[in-house]
This record gives sequence, C-alpha cells and structure tokens, in this order.
Amino acid sequence: MSERVVLAYSGGLDTSVGIGWLKDATGKEVVALAVDVGQGGEDMEDIRQRALACGAVDAVVVDAKEEFANDYLMPALKANASYQKQYPLVSGLSRPLIAKYLAVTAHELGADSVAHGCTGKGNDQVRFEAAIAALAPELTSIAPVRDLALTRDKAIVYAQEHNLPIEQSKKNPYSIDKNVWGRTLETGFLEDPWNPPIEDLYEYTQNPADVQPADEIIITFERGVPVAIDGKAQSPLEIVQNLNALAGKHGIGRIDIIEDRLVGIKSREIYETPAATTLIVAHEALENLTLERDLNRYKRKVEADWANLVYDGLWFSALKRSLDVFIDDTQRHVSGDIRLTLQGGRAVVTGQRSTESLYDFDLATYDTGDTFDQSLSKGFIELWSLPSRISARRDAQQKHVAGK
Amino acid sequence: MSERVVLAYSGGLDTSVGIGWLKDATGKEVVALAVDVGQGGEDMEDIRQRALACGAVDAVVVDAKEEFANDYLMPALKANASYQKQYPLVSGLSRPLIAKYLAVTAHELGADSVAHGCTGKGNDQVRFEAAIAALAPELTSIAPVRDLALTRDKAIVYAQEHNLPIEQSKKNPYSIDKNVWGRTLETGFLEDPWNPPIEDLYEYTQNPADVQPADEIIITFERGVPVAIDGKAQSPLEIVQNLNALAGKHGIGRIDIIEDRLVGIKSREIYETPAATTLIVAHEALENLTLERDLNRYKRKVEADWANLVYDGLWFSALKRSLDVFIDDTQRHVSGDIRLTLQGGRAVVTGQRSTESLYDFDLATYDTGDTFDQSLSKGFIELWSLPSRISARRDAQQKHVAGK
Amino acid sequence: MSERVVLAYSGGLDTSVGIGWLKDATGKEVVALAVDVGQGGEDMEDIRQRALACGAVDAVVVDAKEEFANDYLMPALKANASYQKQYPLVSGLSRPLIAKYLAVTAHELGADSVAHGCTGKGNDQVRFEAAIAALAPELTSIAPVRDLALTRDKAIVYAQEHNLPIEQSKKNPYSIDKNVWGRTLETGFLEDPWNPPIEDLYEYTQNPADVQPADEIIITFERGVPVAIDGKAQSPLEIVQNLNALAGKHGIGRIDIIEDRLVGIKSREIYETPAATTLIVAHEALENLTLERDLNRYKRKVEADWANLVYDGLWFSALKRSLDVFIDDTQRHVSGDIRLTLQGGRAVVTGQRSTESLYDFDLATYDTGDTFDQSLSKGFIELWSLPSRISARRDAQQKHVAGK
Amino acid sequence: MSERVVLAYSGGLDTSVGIGWLKDATGKEVVALAVDVGQGGEDMEDIRQRALACGAVDAVVVDAKEEFANDYLMPALKANASYQKQYPLVSGLSRPLIAKYLAVTAHELGADSVAHGCTGKGNDQVRFEAAIAALAPELTSIAPVRDLALTRDKAIVYAQEHNLPIEQSKKNPYSIDKNVWGRTLETGFLEDPWNPPIEDLYEYTQNPADVQPADEIIITFERGVPVAIDGKAQSPLEIVQNLNALAGKHGIGRIDIIEDRLVGIKSREIYETPAATTLIVAHEALENLTLERDLNRYKRKVEADWANLVYDGLWFSALKRSLDVFIDDTQRHVSGDIRLTLQGGRAVVTGQRSTESLYDFDLATYDTGDTFDQSLSKGFIELWSLPSRISARRDAQQKHVAGK
Repeated sequence: MSERVVLAYSGGLDTSVGIGWLKDATGKEVVALAVDVGQGGEDMEDIRQRALACGAVDAVVVDAKEEFANDYLMPALKANASYQKQYPLVSGLSRPLIAKYLAVTAHELGADSVAHGCTGKGNDQVRFEAAIAALAPELTSIAPVRDLALTRDKAIVYAQEHNLPIEQSKKNPYSIDKNVWGRTLETGFLEDPWNPPIEDLYEYTQNPADVQPADEIIITFERGVPVAIDGKAQSPLEIVQNLNALAGKHGIGRIDIIEDRLVGIKSREIYETPAATTLIVAHEALENLTLERDLNRYKRKVEADWANLVYDGLWFSALKRSLDVFIDDTQRHVSGDIRLTLQGGRAVVTGQRSTESLYDFDLATYDTGDTFDQSLSKGFIELWSLPSRISARRDAQQKHVAGK
Repeated sequence: MSERVVLAYSGGLDTSVGIGWLKDATGKEVVALAVDVGQGGEDMEDIRQRALACGAVDAVVVDAKEEFANDYLMPALKANASYQKQYPLVSGLSRPLIAKYLAVTAHELGADSVAHGCTGKGNDQVRFEAAIAALAPELTSIAPVRDLALTRDKAIVYAQEHNLPIEQSKKNPYSIDKNVWGRTLETGFLEDPWNPPIEDLYEYTQNPADVQPADEIIITFERGVPVAIDGKAQSPLEIVQNLNALAGKHGIGRIDIIEDRLVGIKSREIYETPAATTLIVAHEALENLTLERDLNRYKRKVEADWANLVYDGLWFSALKRSLDVFIDDTQRHVSGDIRLTLQGGRAVVTGQRSTESLYDFDLATYDTGDTFDQSLSKGFIELWSLPSRISARRDAQQKHVAGK
Repeated sequence: MSERVVLAYSGGLDTSVGIGWLKDATGKEVVALAVDVGQGGEDMEDIRQRALACGAVDAVVVDAKEEFANDYLMPALKANASYQKQYPLVSGLSRPLIAKYLAVTAHELGADSVAHGCTGKGNDQVRFEAAIAALAPELTSIAPVRDLALTRDKAIVYAQEHNLPIEQSKKNPYSIDKNVWGRTLETGFLEDPWNPPIEDLYEYTQNPADVQPADEIIITFERGVPVAIDGKAQSPLEIVQNLNALAGKHGIGRIDIIEDRLVGIKSREIYETPAATTLIVAHEALENLTLERDLNRYKRKVEADWANLVYDGLWFSALKRSLDVFIDDTQRHVSGDIRLTLQGGRAVVTGQRSTESLYDFDLATYDTGDTFDQSLSKGFIELWSLPSRISARRDAQQKHVAGK
Repeated sequence: MSERVVLAYSGGLDTSVGIGWLKDATGKEVVALAVDVGQGGEDMEDIRQRALACGAVDAVVVDAKEEFANDYLMPALKANASYQKQYPLVSGLSRPLIAKYLAVTAHELGADSVAHGCTGKGNDQVRFEAAIAALAPELTSIAPVRDLALTRDKAIVYAQEHNLPIEQSKKNPYSIDKNVWGRTLETGFLEDPWNPPIEDLYEYTQNPADVQPADEIIITFERGVPVAIDGKAQSPLEIVQNLNALAGKHGIGRIDIIEDRLVGIKSREIYETPAATTLIVAHEALENLTLERDLNRYKRKVEADWANLVYDGLWFSALKRSLDVFIDDTQRHVSGDIRLTLQGGRAVVTGQRSTESLYDFDLATYDTGDTFDQSLSKGFIELWSLPSRISARRDAQQKHVAGK
C-alpha cells in the first residue's frame, strides 16, 4: 500500500487542486476529509464527490456540528472568549476540531501525514499543526500552499489543465472562513486600515442602521451553558443557530479590528458573530449576578489568557486543559435567566434573575429593611487604607528630615 | 480658635443639613467646600451662598474641571479604565480629586478634620477616606450620614426646624452622582435586577432607539490623549464636553450592571458615559494599531488591575502610581487618527491611521508585493508546538506501558 | 437551655481565662474545643480536663492531624505555597481547619456563636472569622482578647483570683503558634528589625552552623503528593513528621521575614518549617521535570495568588476552591523521585527521575544521537522577533522623518 | 569594498574557526568583536591578536564591564530576576549587550551582517538575533554552527588543516558561558537528570560543605542599587566582583535546575552566581521593609514576567522597556542597609534598617505603646468576609430548597 496523507478539504479551489498537487509532490495517496462545523453553503455529499473527482483515493465527510457546539463553543462561552476583547475566536475554535478528525482519519485509514490548505502567514496553519503535534505527534503536517508553493495563480492553471470540476475565478476578492460561531473575512481594499468596510462584505448580519422592531428574548443558562430561549429547551447548537438568525437580523456582532497575529504581524479582520456576541453579553451578565467578587475579577483575567492560548493554537495544551478545569468549576452557580433586547446592532441586557443570585436585596437597598450595618465600614476603611497612611507618614517624615 | 472641619459640600439636602449636624455633634466650625468637576446644574456661587446660609463659617468653591480632565480622566483613558469591563469609573475618579481639595483646604484654613456626605455601604466613603489617609494622614475623616446617624428622614426634619434654604422632598427616588465623565444612578425599582430601566432615568443620553442621522467624526490622539476632533484642536475637557453632547445625542454609553462593591455586596447601577465610552473605543483601536502584540496583551491585563485599584479607592497608593508610570510609557506611540460613526447607541470605528502604525501593508497583504517569507513559519510552528509534542509522546508512552 | 459559645481552646493562659471571661461577659455557657494539628506539647486529655476545671460546660478534643496533613498541607504543597516567596503558611493553614471544627461543634452542641483567643491586630482573627462566615454564616464570632478587652495582665489577675490551674507568668516573651507544618514566633527584641535572631528562639531546628554529616534521601511523589521516603511508603502525616525530625536536625527551614499582614501593618516573624521547606524544594524540582513550560510558568503565578488568598483568610472562598481545582489538575503527571542532600541548613536536589518526565535526552543532548533539527530555529527566531523588528523599522522611519 | 560580517568572537575553537568558515561560505570579510563582560580568563589583547591570526580583517575589543553592571545587572537586580524562581539570567543578560556592540560595530565598520557562535537548540541564538532585529533590523544574522553546519568535529579538522593558533581538544566535556553575574555549565554526564553534580564542575564557588568561618556584611542600597559594602562606597561592578569572591568562598549561589528553554525543550543546567544570589536575597529583604503590601505583591508577579521576557530574548522589546519603567518607579524608597551572614552555602539576612522603612514599631509591637486600634478589625473582617458569607447563605438556601 502506498503512503497516505489526509487533507482537510473544503471543496474550494485551493484544496481541490491540493489533492493532485500533494500526490505529485509527495507520491502519497490523498484522502480528502470534509468536516461540517456549520459553515453552510454546499451539500457535504457534493463536496465529497468533488474530492473523488479531483483524484482523492478516498473522501470522508464528518458532521461535527453538535460536537463543535458542545465541546468547543460552550467552553469558549464559559470563558467569554474574546481575543483583543472583541473577537470570539471563530476559526481558532474550529481548527482544533478539524485537526482532531484529521488525526482520527489518518489513524483509521493508515495515513502517515496530514495536510491543510493554509498559507504560511496566518494563524490557522499553527492551529492545525500544533493540534496535530499534541494529538498525534507521529504524524507529519504538510501545507501545500506554504511548503509546496501552491499559489492561487498556479492553482487556477492546474485546475484548467486537469479539468478539475471547480469554478475558476481570480475575481473573488474575499478570503473567508465560516462556521456556526461566526464568519471571518479579509480582503484587499481593507488592507488599508483607513478604508471603512462596506455593506457588501456581510452575510450573517443585516445592516444595523436599518433598524428593525426590537426583539426581546430570555436566555436560560445552567452552569454556564444556555439551555433554553424564552423557556423553550434547545441544544447548544440549536441556540447558536437560532441566535445567529435572530441577532443577525438586528446586525449584532459585526467586528472590524486590527489584530495581532501569532506569526508577528498585524492584520485587518472583519468578523460577524451574532450568536456568539449575544451569548457572551448574556453570560457575562449572569456571572456578574452569581459569582463572588474575587472570583469574578480573577476569572476575567484568566479569560484573557484563555483567549490568547486558543488564538495561538494551543487548544490541546496542558495549560489550556487546566484552565478549562478552573473555568468549569467557576460555572457551578452560573444558572438563571437573562433578558435581552436585540435591536440596531446591540444586544442589551434588561433583566437578570437567578436562584443562585448573590445580589442581596436586603443588603443593597437604601429603603427600609436594610440589613447592612454601616458602622462596620469605619473599621474596614481604616485597615484598608492603613498601608497608604503609613507610607504617607513615612514620606512626610522624609520631607521633614530633608528640610523640604 | 475653634477646631474646624472641612465638609465636601454638594448643595443638596444631606450636606446642607450636615453643616449644622456636624457642628452640633463635634463642636467644630464647619467649612464648606464645593468642587466643580463638571457636574453641571446649579451655579457654584449659589451653592457657596447656601452653605453660608446653612451655618458654614466659611465656604470655598474650586473650579477643578480642567484639572479633573487632565489629571484624572486622561490617565483613566490611557488605561481604558472600565470596571467589570464596562463602567468607566465616573465617581471613582472624582472622589480622589475632591479629597485632595479637602486636604488642601484643611491645611490652608487650619482644620484638623474633613467630612463627606457618603453612606456607610457604598464605595465613595472608602475613596474619600483612603485618599485623605494617603494625602494627609494627620486629618480625621467624619461621615455624618454614617458616623453621626444623619438619615434622610432626620435631615428633612432638621432642615424644616432650622429653616434651611433647601428644597425638601422625600420624593426624588434617585441617588445620583454626576461629573463630566458621566452620570451614575441608583433607584428603588431597579433594586430588583429583573426590572428593566426606563427612559425617564437618563439625562446625558437620548434614547438610542430613536435613531438619528449618523455623525462621523475623526478623533486625533497624541501619546494616548485626544487633542483634536475633526482636525480642530481642543483641550481634553472640551473634547469630553463636546463628545458628551454628540455621543449623548446618539444614546451612546448607557450601562446597566450588577456591580461588585468594595464593601462586599452587589448592587444594580445605571451609568451614562457618552464621551468616556466613545473615547475608550477609539483609544483601544489606536492601541491595536500602534502597540506591539506582547505589550498590548500585557497592558490589557494591567488595565483591569488599574480599574480595580481605582474603583477600590486606592488612587493615591504606591501601586497605582507605579502602574501609571507603566501605562504612560506605553503611550509613546499611541498617536494618530481614529474615524468613528456615531449612531443608534453605538460608536463604531471605521478607520484608523497613524505615522506610528505597526500595521505593515507589505507583510499583511495577500497581493503582489508580499514580503512575508512563508517558509519561516514551518520552523516557528515546530518549536512553538514542541512542548505539546513532547508531552503527547510522553502520554502515548505512558499508555503503552500501562497496556492501555 | 442557656445559649452556648464554642471556644477554640489551646490550654494556655489566654483561652483558659477566656472561658470565665466569655461566660461573665455574654452569659453563655462555654464549650471548649481543642484541636490537635500536631502542635505537640501537652497531652490532649490534660488540656480537656483543664478546660473543665476552668469552667467549661463541656470540652471536646479532636485529633485532626491526619485530616490536616491530607486536606490542608497537601493542597499547600501542590501549590508550593510560600507567602512572600518564603513563608509556607503555617498558621494560615491550621486556622480554617480549627474553624471548621468550631462550626461542627457549635452545630452538634447547639451553640449560636464561636470564639477564639486572637488579638485584633493579627491575621488569625481574620482567618477564623472569615472561615466561620463561609461555613456557618449564622454563627457569631467573638474574640475576648479583642472584643472583650481581655489583656494579658488582666488574664493573669483573673487566673490568680479564680485559682485557675494554669501556670501564670509574665515572663515568657514569645508569642508562639505551632503545628506539624511549622512553628511561628514573635518576640519583643525582634520588633527592631535590625536585631538578629538568637539561637534560643528555635525548637524545631538545630543550628545549621553546627554541621552534621549529610543525609541523602529520596522522596517519591504521586500526582504531587509525597508517598514514600527512600522507597518506604508513608502517609502524608508520617512524611511531614519524619522530615521535621530529619531536616530539623540539619537546621533546614528557618525563616526571618518582614511580613505584610492583612490588617495593613508590617511585622517581623520567625518561622521554622523543616518538612515544609524540604518538600516544597523537592516538589518544585519534580514539577520542573514533568510540567510543560507554559503550564509551569502559569502555575508559578497562580501559586503566588493562592498563597495570598490563604494568607488573607479566604480558605473557604469560591476563588480558592476554583484555584484548587486548577492546581489539582496540573498534578496529574507530577510523579517520580527526587533525591536530596540535607546538610547545613540546606535541602539540595541532586537527582530527579520520573516515568512522566518531559526531559527528552535525545532532544537535549549535544552528543551523537541528537534528534533536534536545528534548522527549524531560524524560522522560529524570525517570527518570534518579528514584532520587535517591525517596531524598530517604525522607530527608524520616525527618526528619519524627524531629521534626527 | 567587500561585504563585511561582524562576528561575536570569544577566542575559543568555534568562533576562531568560524572566521574562516564564514569567509569561505559567504565571501564576506570577517570582523571579530570580543566584548569583555567580566568573563575573566585570557587577556583581551591576546584574544584580539588571535582573531587577526585566524583571518579576521579587523578585530575589536570592547571593555563593557561597567556598562554591563550598570545597565544590565542592576535592572535585573531591581527585578530580582530569577528564571524559574532560581536562575539569575546570567547569559540572558550578556547576550543583548554583546548584540548591541555587534550592531554598533557593524554600523561603524560598514558591515551588512552579524554572526555568533551559538547552536540551533539553545536560547542564546534567539537572544542575539532578537536583539539585532530590535536594534538594527536591516542587519542579517548568521549562525555558522547552525546555518553553515560548523560542527565541533569539523572545527577541529579545519583548525588543524589551517594551522590556527588554538588548542585543539575533543576532551573538554563542558559547555561553559561566563560573565561577572555568573557561570553556566552543561555537560554530558549531567544530561541524565538523576546523576548528581560533582565538585569538579565549579569554579566561582568553593564547596559549601567545607564550612568556613562566617562572614558578616552590610550591604547599603540606594533606590534599589547597592552602593556600599560595610559602609565603603563601591560601584555596582566592584560590589558584584567583591561579592563573587566573598560569597563564592562560602559556596553561595550554586544552582542545578531542569530548565524550560524557549525553543521548547527541557535541559539540565548548572549555574554559579555567588554575587547575584546574595544581592537578590538582600534586595528582596529591603523591599519587604520599604514597599507597600499591594505594590510588593504586584511587583513579585511582574518580576516573574520580566525574567521570562529576558530569558526569552526580548530585552529590547517594547514590553520589557515599559516593565523597566514600572520597576524603576517602585525603587524610589528601596534604600537602606541589609546585614547578612555568609556561610555554608547560605546568605542569611539577619538585620534590616532604613529611613524609608514602612515597619512601624508602634503599630507592630505587642508591648506598651501599641497604637493599633484593635476595635477596627471587627468591621474590617465583617466586610472582608461578606462575599463569602453571602454565598454561604445562598448555598445553604440552595440545599434547603433541594431538600438536602
């Protein structure tokens, strides 16, 4: 049997040409793997057939949407994961899952290597290969676009010469990645950061300036995970899909950011994440209601570290795993209802309630019934500020000694 | 000469009654100090006259608006200070400045103590007294409402009995603090976190659902500080005032949050911070363009610590001072223009440019002219993921040994 | 039935007098609780009888040594807990355990309050009362020394007048706390930080300058917990006790530190922690061998936070619990042998081995057989330093533009 | 004029052969640069002559000892820099300074590239090249050993064939780097982490088991920098040199550690850092006396980040610079005297005094004269533990509702 390589296959030009290109360059049989993470678009069976038509010795389709929602998006939500405070890690979440299936498929079908269609200047190459290194260190990773010099121009020529069944166009100016957590986009004219985005870029969201009648929803969480909308129980995947539609209608979750890539450069990125943005807003509000102050403050800093780690491709690292255990533990009381108004690009929390609430009306109120003993504060403040007081005395003495 | 106490005087019921109350309880002469931090409303001279009419031996007015903007708001902006990721620290910023003038006035007028009108269950008492401890450790702090049991009901009776020249009403249900950085509000019906806020609460902002024609502005920063709007040079104070009007018109900067107070309880707070919210959005975007990745990531975590410190009343602490020095140093390249669209409750960045930009078109572009050497990535990824690879091998060996 | 209070009873003067003092001041029956955390000294039954003789309505003795070792010391060891990088938290670990038995005993014997003998300027009052607040928020905490003004002089007079069966001496100049994790000491002449400690202060350790023949030991860990010395399986408690003797003989674990107390002051503290110091040295070495770099670096910072939290009395807080879950997870591979030489005040690691080791000879060696592909480094370094390179170019351009 | 490369020249086999090897491989003229950072050993002029004899077109010697002590070691001391809590960054500190002189020399002598003798699996290659990238991004870095496959065996043959004036030996089993801050060593038999080090390895330190009569010294610091020993003013370099002799005599500063290299592998390293270890012990003690609690705690975490950054070769990065500014600001009160006893491998602080001390005898003492108002503690503890109390009530209610 020949050696084999499993290629992460999208159905597009680059990876379709990649099948033959890999075979030519390495002599290996190419197995195509298409993973459904909710990217929508074409039928997965059509994609599978195309892979075979392009020369794959085998083609495998995996529906990983539920797994993606349960095991990748929900941990990200618990972590309120937002790279640079804004970006919910769309591609950073799908890459490790696809890499997992690359490793599984390589193992099942006897391949000694895996391949992906990423370029050499993005984050996704790192995410794929770091995940493979952690899951199946014996596998070799190949990146035809980067390692075998498969440029777009060469791909078009190759496809034409080999009559590959793919539309060939130099025109589409957008570099796009999609999954159920969001849509990412880079494009030429936005490479000047002074140029504003145009309405034509967006697909998951309508223009927030075209204001629709407001929608009010109640999201119910149990231990950090959304379980129902307006009282109707739904799976995480269903909730994400439904919120994409609803929040997308109101133009929620558009992001336009100068981003620090792991490979050391800055890039301009456009994202659309209607469900992710809405869920994170709601989840944070519920945490503010149910987490103790010190834990809440600490977790916010861990969240930034978690987002950096995952952005940087270290999903399967030991640190990421231990941070997950920490974050999971923090969620034991994060249960309750958050009411939001969706409109005009904004998901606004208007109510929060929980049997796990740490908000204590009797302590908080300024009305009759207040149980807070204000006389305690004097002692608290005295000791709280004692280090400042002592050092102020030191400084005053210093000045005195110095004759100032 | 009698002993003296300097009271932070607002002109309202509590501190007006506080003048006599303090005198009765302590035997000290009361000096009233009113500090203008842009709270608007009454004429400061009217306030001064009222203090005298209420029995103050002396009454001092300080216009601290410029100082507040330059020395308190600008450092907060450089720190993108947002407690719990949202609240720009409105009261947390004015309290230390007022405390400074309490200390200065006490020194100038020979007082041995200072006083403020805060209750014993909020943050502001801590901010006042911790600031005094750090600035003038020899002064005693008195809080009539907390220490001398001056309740609102007693205040109304006292004012009536003594014919104090203040409107007396049990009706106003709002507890409000204002300055040029924003407006804070607590009120009875919001003490149930499930109740939504109502439009009547707001003063600095119009309803964002009443969408106005968009305004596009360009804010110019120099070393982290805004210096011009649409090319017109303005002082920090002018910029904050003008943005309050403009962004307020679009309903930008409304915040509704369950907040962790320093004294250990959670409370429901409403804020309006049109200028602060707009400036922080713009400033962060400019930092994303001009700060190196590691510094940007690190600073975001320091910012959370800075906001916690200031929220917790430690403005004049040694740690706060050293963090300021760090933050100031990070701003040396944070100069450039940010273009924003203001509309419908949102301040959206649509363009960013800077002679200090670290965005490198030649490295970022996917077009011809790309100078990024993609072959470098392979080595990078190998070493980046080497720890994961080694531990994966360890784990595989473990399983092998264990016969799993 | 009268109301009851459970007093944490040591058998010494303060708490012996405290029994009657509490009864007189509160009218409550006093139950004495003595918890054995390995403090050594008197027989626990003698202590129990003394409590009864001093007027306790009941006296309870709990042998908590194993629980202390398993549930308090081992988590501290996993966290390498060292306040201010040095102090292994001796008293900070026993207080929450004693507080737990105060709450349990109060519940079992129908008490509505608990009491302890701490002063009002130390950390232990906070640790007791914060633990009670977290475990049994309905109980009231009383501190006779602090709240009821029971000074040492008054205690001696009271004991004499009431013929309490305790030795009465104003002479002992040392304030001491002991448990199996170490011994703490404060004393008058050390309150001048320029005075050196004297040999007379120490009890757990011999003078390290009197050098003994070296002892070499091998400590075996499983998942972060020591399980054997020199191949002989022992419980955590046995290991701690045996190392106290062995390392104590070599003068290991003496600490002399200016310490930042939670109540805002600095104090001079002497500690002796022979077993704790030795175990932490060994445990850290094993972690260096078995933890991935990023996890190791991150954990070191979490450790500092953990030590601060526990020092500050927040053992039973939500944040502490979630940090424990994190730390526990990090220990899954921390198994193996550490060889140490004990001599002259030093516990020195001389060998480390583990089936879980991440040290890879083939990658590390400079000898033949090296499997590290050095050519990968070039790409790694290029991307690692790319942000610095880009900003250096920016700065050069700036200077050029400015004509410098 | 031919192109030129400046080679960091040590005088040893690798870099001596590197001169010709570089010329052959690149066609460039080779300029040798030897930087004196206190490594001792040969006369620098002898080294310079050898470089010329080996074919260098020019050879430059720089005495950078004072600069190294002032601008590299003192910042490290202020940061108490200790990688993995132990290693004072010996090589990590000299590499950026040598790189600076490579860049300076390249600029002065018209070279377009620089070179160093490091292998491709260590940290030093990163430190050299990252520093060059930050200081002179236009220069190319060449590593003959790594990039031009100059192995040790090839070097010996080359030296023999070309009659280079260097001793040629395959025997020396030690890989050594030295400077005035310490000495680093790797060697074959220690590549098994279970093997103990042997006495023969050490040069800066005598055997601590051969106990010498104790030396007592007083180190005086001003703003974090040592300025005198036993009252005798000395420069930082003199203090480091003198302490190397004195503390080295007592065997202080031996380190044996499994270290996480930046390139992703673990290695076994031996260090000797008598002066560094002694100074850090003293400096930390003085900080404990003079820094406010919150600042002290925060700085300890920044120190770990600083050490990681510098270890990782990012000396000239923007983050490092801003952290330096933070650390410098913290040192304004770190002045005073620390008395140490040096003996038997240990530098033990026995006294500390400072006009900047925050230790307040009147607050700390348990004797008459105590000014600490213990009644304040009750209020402090109540509010400090209020979040725990509230969540304990929540949890109790939960259990009640659940019928547990």
